[in-house]
Amino acid sequence: MPELRYDPLRRYWVSIAAERGMRPSDFVKAGAETSGGDFCPFCPGNEHVTPPEVYAWRPDDSPPDGPGWELRVVPSKFRALAVEGDLTREAEGIFEKMNGFGVHEVVIETPQHHLGMADYSLEHLGEIIRAYLSRLTELKTDPRLRYIMIAKNHGEAAGATLAHSHSQLIAAPIIPPVVSTELDSAREYYRERGRCLLCDVIEQELEAGERIVSQSDGFVTLAPFASQVPFELCIVPKRHQHAFAAITEDEVAGLAWALKDALTRLKLILKDPAYNLAFHIAPNAEASSGRWSTLEMDFHWHVEVIPRLIQSHGFERGMGFYVNFTPPEEAASHLRESL
Amino acid sequence: MPELRYDPLRRYWVSIAAERGMRPSDFVKAGAETSGGDFCPFCPGNEHVTPPEVYAWRPDDSPPDGPGWELRVVPSKFRALAVEGDLTREAEGIFEKMNGFGVHEVVIETPQHHLGMADYSLEHLGEIIRAYLSRLTELKTDPRLRYIMIAKNHGEAAGATLAHSHSQLIAAPIIPPVVSTELDSAREYYRERGRCLLCDVIEQELEAGERIVSQSDGFVTLAPFASQVPFELCIVPKRHQHAFAAITEDEVAGLAWALKDALTRLKLILKDPAYNLAFHIAPNAEASSGRWSTLEMDFHWHVEVIPRLIQSHGFERGMGFYVNFTPPEEAASHLRESL
Repeated sequence: MPELRYDPLRRYWVSIAAERGMRPSDFVKAGAETSGGDFCPFCPGNEHVTPPEVYAWRPDDSPPDGPGWELRVVPSKFRALAVEGDLTREAEGIFEKMNGFGVHEVVIETPQHHLGMADYSLEHLGEIIRAYLSRLTELKTDPRLRYIMIAKNHGEAAGATLAHSHSQLIAAPIIPPVVSTELDSAREYYRERGRCLLCDVIEQELEAGERIVSQSDGFVTLAPFASQVPFELCIVPKRHQHAFAAITEDEVAGLAWALKDALTRLKLILKDPAYNLAFHIAPNAEASSGRWSTLEMDFHWHVEVIPRLIQSHGFERGMGFYVNFTPPEEAASHLRESL
Repeated sequence: MPELRYDPLRRYWVSIAAERGMRPSDFVKAGAETSGGDFCPFCPGNEHVTPPEVYAWRPDDSPPDGPGWELRVVPSKFRALAVEGDLTREAEGIFEKMNGFGVHEVVIETPQHHLGMADYSLEHLGEIIRAYLSRLTELKTDPRLRYIMIAKNHGEAAGATLAHSHSQLIAAPIIPPVVSTELDSAREYYRERGRCLLCDVIEQELEAGERIVSQSDGFVTLAPFASQVPFELCIVPKRHQHAFAAITEDEVAGLAWALKDALTRLKLILKDPAYNLAFHIAPNAEASSGRWSTLEMDFHWHVEVIPRLIQSHGFERGMGFYVNFTPPEEAASHLRESL
């Protein structure tokens, strides 16, 4: 019989309906390929096609926007938000709007067109994380930008429109709703019990073990109790840490290991599936709004890994009611045995 | 420059980024085909393959579960929820769970394998709506079922796994989160102003006109101010109506017209796109929980039409932050001119 499970952080019920008995091989499709023309604007030699880089990992003697780089961060050409003028906010009758003030950047993660994030060396992954941190540090100095989103689309089914591996940052004057809900539940939990919700989740999960995929000294990767989709994963720092921006050099290496480990396991058993990464981090502490003050104990950053194996249907897309035919315990078991 | 817009009912900000300049033809793909074998469990002659019907539109002299029907409602074989035993609720440490008590049914809308909802006659659409209403009336007598979801998946990109046109009902012991948010905002608005939020939205939209696609005496179809995706539509009864179950015979005909009109327009300009329908209706007034009492003024049912033209990306899927490159004013203009 199916089971309804509640996610205390994200605040929803999901139906875990194991009886359909979906196994990893049922999800294997053609792989995470992305169509598109022969020309790749992210490949070395085509630097002139992108807006000028705002950050790069390249030899000291190589000039910006030329070849020789290992990683580049450039403004997005298809801007979800843009820095022009000041942030304005106005009513349109019953509605409200702001100009789309913000920053939208693309992290071109590698010069090699055919690599995916699972293929990078740990050192290379560390440099990608350092690029995120560097941009985060710069962007958060603008107090109008309340939240900096970091996400990755791997494969067409995950929304990637270019095959060349990249991730994206959007710095926005609003806090995205999923994060806002997490902030609310984490804060309420902390007010009631004086403890961090995610710290308590990790403790319970490490003790139970059945949903743990892997762990190192610093990080644990688990299949969430109320996973919305098959093989969903969450990468969490073991020690309480409010702000992603506060991670140490050791933790950068630990996160690089955890990302490579999780993505390699998914690639092995699901044959290079499409997926999204979403960094759920604390809001910008420099932002003008005081609603989310720096309580430090009321949030615990983490990375969501969302394989895009099946199309969401009307109950999910229209009502937020998820039905997951792969219990997270089974997903974790397959992933544990994959390496 | 992009614009951030707030949805007062669904409570999120969306970036409307017109500068990418997406036109309807940019979204046209192969059409809403669904792969699958040659055998269709929903076609006449294969009635024995489905669980026994719980409702049918068929001649009086034709026996159940045989051919001759125009519409059948059967329990789903892949149950998201199931009626077995009693509703139980228990803790698992920090987590909460219930057995998956509920009902999951499939409305096989037509005996004709190749028709879509846009192709039905108005009379046939009326019978589909009557089937929803009949099941709703029966299911809501169980006070453990707090909400009855009605949704449709058209095409593989919308989550349909069978090509034969059908819709689905899930009666659940929980209220889905998107509806729960809408109930909260509608109730707060009503408490503050003594008016219905959606009634006020309709009034403003009819006056502005630019986001209206079409209207009849009873219903209006509009492109929401803060549309999450290109060509999203909302079909709303013009007069305030709390419960879908309370619609009159005239309104059944009006809704049939509005559905056919909206789906025909989408089919014409987007060449049979995949889409989801989601009925946002009031919770079950017979349910045991008193949280959503029958205030009658605090909710206004409506139908969301969500074309699935592009894959959602990491910001949407992981954080609930939508970026829409087709302003609803443009979508409405294309759709107005389509017929």
